[in-house]
Amino acid sequence: MQFKHKDILDIESLSAEEITMILDTASGMKEISDRPVKKVPTLRGKTIVLFFLEPSTRTRISFDIAAKRLSADSISISQSTSSIVKGETLVDTAKNLEAMHPDIIVMRHSFSGAAGMIAKRVKASVINAGDGTHAHPSQGLLDLMSVREKKGKINGLKIALVGDISHSRVARSDIAGFTKMGAEVMVAAPGTMIPKKIETLGCQVADNIEACLSDADVIIMLRIQKERQQSVLFPTEREYSQIFGLNRDRLKLAKKDVVVMHPGPMNRGVEIANDVADGNASVILDQVTNGVALRMALFYILAGGSRHADTV
Amino acid sequence: MQFKHKDILDIESLSAEEITMILDTASGMKEISDRPVKKVPTLRGKTIVLFFLEPSTRTRISFDIAAKRLSADSISISQSTSSIVKGETLVDTAKNLEAMHPDIIVMRHSFSGAAGMIAKRVKASVINAGDGTHAHPSQGLLDLMSVREKKGKINGLKIALVGDISHSRVARSDIAGFTKMGAEVMVAAPGTMIPKKIETLGCQVADNIEACLSDADVIIMLRIQKERQQSVLFPTEREYSQIFGLNRDRLKLAKKDVVVMHPGPMNRGVEIANDVADGNASVILDQVTNGVALRMALFYILAGGSRHADTV
Amino acid sequence: MQFKHKDILDIESLSAEEITMILDTASGMKEISDRPVKKVPTLRGKTIVLFFLEPSTRTRISFDIAAKRLSADSISISQSTSSIVKGETLVDTAKNLEAMHPDIIVMRHSFSGAAGMIAKRVKASVINAGDGTHAHPSQGLLDLMSVREKKGKINGLKIALVGDISHSRVARSDIAGFTKMGAEVMVAAPGTMIPKKIETLGCQVADNIEACLSDADVIIMLRIQKERQQSVLFPTEREYSQIFGLNRDRLKLAKKDVVVMHPGPMNRGVEIANDVADGNASVILDQVTNGVALRMALFYILAGGSRHADTV
Repeated sequence: MQFKHKDILDIESLSAEEITMILDTASGMKEISDRPVKKVPTLRGKTIVLFFLEPSTRTRISFDIAAKRLSADSISISQSTSSIVKGETLVDTAKNLEAMHPDIIVMRHSFSGAAGMIAKRVKASVINAGDGTHAHPSQGLLDLMSVREKKGKINGLKIALVGDISHSRVARSDIAGFTKMGAEVMVAAPGTMIPKKIETLGCQVADNIEACLSDADVIIMLRIQKERQQSVLFPTEREYSQIFGLNRDRLKLAKKDVVVMHPGPMNRGVEIANDVADGNASVILDQVTNGVALRMALFYILAGGSRHADTV
Repeated sequence: MQFKHKDILDIESLSAEEITMILDTASGMKEISDRPVKKVPTLRGKTIVLFFLEPSTRTRISFDIAAKRLSADSISISQSTSSIVKGETLVDTAKNLEAMHPDIIVMRHSFSGAAGMIAKRVKASVINAGDGTHAHPSQGLLDLMSVREKKGKINGLKIALVGDISHSRVARSDIAGFTKMGAEVMVAAPGTMIPKKIETLGCQVADNIEACLSDADVIIMLRIQKERQQSVLFPTEREYSQIFGLNRDRLKLAKKDVVVMHPGPMNRGVEIANDVADGNASVILDQVTNGVALRMALFYILAGGSRHADTV
Repeated sequence: MQFKHKDILDIESLSAEEITMILDTASGMKEISDRPVKKVPTLRGKTIVLFFLEPSTRTRISFDIAAKRLSADSISISQSTSSIVKGETLVDTAKNLEAMHPDIIVMRHSFSGAAGMIAKRVKASVINAGDGTHAHPSQGLLDLMSVREKKGKINGLKIALVGDISHSRVARSDIAGFTKMGAEVMVAAPGTMIPKKIETLGCQVADNIEACLSDADVIIMLRIQKERQQSVLFPTEREYSQIFGLNRDRLKLAKKDVVVMHPGPMNRGVEIANDVADGNASVILDQVTNGVALRMALFYILAGGSRHADTV
């Protein structure tokens, strides 16, 4: 199968077949990180620019490690070092990067739609590593990968998604991905944290967290994104924890073999209790491991793909 | 021809023959960035330190990509991470870097003369990536490369250089380079932005922008360096734009096949109009592409040179 | 000899035999940085994370260059880019890094014991690159290496250690290392800069700097760590310099072939006079050179070791 997209901007643009191809490729990549020599020459001589205009550690590091394990050259640009401080437009900065002939630009920006705007204007492949509240497709894909790995399938599962749906690009990418792959997604959140007409994305809205968690195969707890909230959306962290936090008692509402996920970084004691975060059901660190493999797969598919398949 | 300098501190120190050799080498390097595998082993095992004590994106990234495409190891040190915050002198920081056996130190500093001061004290080659208002030789050289590429020659051309001459190290390097290679350089700027006795550098001063642009083969618009101006040098940006900005009407004063250049980042609508920046005469993004090739050439000539010529 | 530790957290945990093995390995590594191609494939495909939560230039750069000269992939995380700003615990950040399968985590943190706390929780090797006032073992080891190189031995030497003992992790690592290798360590400092019961570490406390320097084979001057002092520990820098600074007159108290060391960055004119810092007895820049070799040795021993010995 040939992958037809130049860019990875959101999950909505991908077909179920394309998602399956990405997940299969990522599963194959995973073993590389377990080798004593965790490196293949596949993308030697490719230039990958990590263009992060919002603070990030885990996502940037994950992409950086993915690039290095494929032998690509990665170049990091962060907010503080960017010319944007000198008043240049984002498009001009991107055109300048383009002129240095990168193969892939991985981009994070606080403006919803930023990656798409740039993708139209450059020949390089663009991977959206988070744009405002719009999308974070590599996170959505690694969540799909983690569920498929733990459950053997995605189709037919009940996915409970709990937390700050309004401010979460992860929520949007997860809803798009899981519904496209045949799962049922049910969301729960305080009324101030749930967008109107969210059902149009294909998910259901639960009346309360108990209904959401009931018989769930997978629970995805979202981070309370304090830095994104423009006003007080809930009274206190303690209150949020009591009403929407995942603790041991609530976990019993789900299926016995439920898996618990969180995109990180966790606010322990707020959206997730310590014993759940560290408990047997938690696959939170597996998500991180899969993140590297998934991003290796995206790089591989976009920058070389089948032409280099024999060197993996 | 053997290159005899340890360092690249300014263009004044280079002979016309040496400049030609650098440009020839850069032209040869350019093709590497068009290959599917954009990397040659030429400088494998060489250590290049990018020591940037002023904020910079494009120049640092350009040097970094140049180093990686030659397989050198590059290490970035930026202002915020430097020991200088702990009160160490610049010379001590440089001697410490030297003790780690780098082959090349690329250095940007707000003090005019900083790179030269360090070059005298270390065995490593030093490339001045901008020192105060003194020089930015790799920018001057990539401008020469871009003109030679577009015009087939430099000798005999009329170069119009417009803008903040006083605060621009690019201006100084351009004047030195173009006059040395046989071009005629004419500058235009508000009276507050032009140093006294600038003619001693070998250029002419136009009475107004129209005289400067008239019959020009090349127009180089300089950035209004707001961050460098210590006082108000012109009333408003709008006024600057009206009197010294390059727009479509003014462009007609130049030769039909004029090329328009700008070192970036551009203040669109101030020193250059949108339709000129994006128009057919503009080679602004070619300058960026050539910048990578030019810096590859500098690295190659300084750190290995002819000894490794067979591996390119 | 097999090296049995997963981590390098402090010098106290190492036996004299292990220290000797590390120094021997480092001496062997040193020659690599003198080659035209300063790179060996020994640690190709290993991932080294440089996790620096306190500002640092020289130490981070030294580890970074060491990693690159062994062909390992290094990833830098600094304070400003860390998720810690998003409220994640240090242990969670470390577990997340671990999930990306690094081989070695080099860690600097302001909390004494931070590296040890993380080492217990991750499978990767942890190298403590400075934790609060506790330890900085790679600095202590490079000091041992430098003394052994200059003096041919460590056993039986008199080491004078002068300065802010209380706030110096270097002091603690030096005292541990030099006493373990059979040297006599004598310390001198203002009363406010010397911890009670420091003698229990195996060193002697001199009544004044003259007694400390008298007949010394090695003088290690410590940096006045202004940034670590919570209150005024001495009246003025000038006064400190007069009472505890190393100048040419005081240097004469030591043995004729004394070597002068300083971990850097130096406060010239405060703890050390210019003519001493730059004089014949000074081996301060040799320490920096040895630092790269020593860190290469630590990486080599922890991440591959004898299995790859044939490729050096």
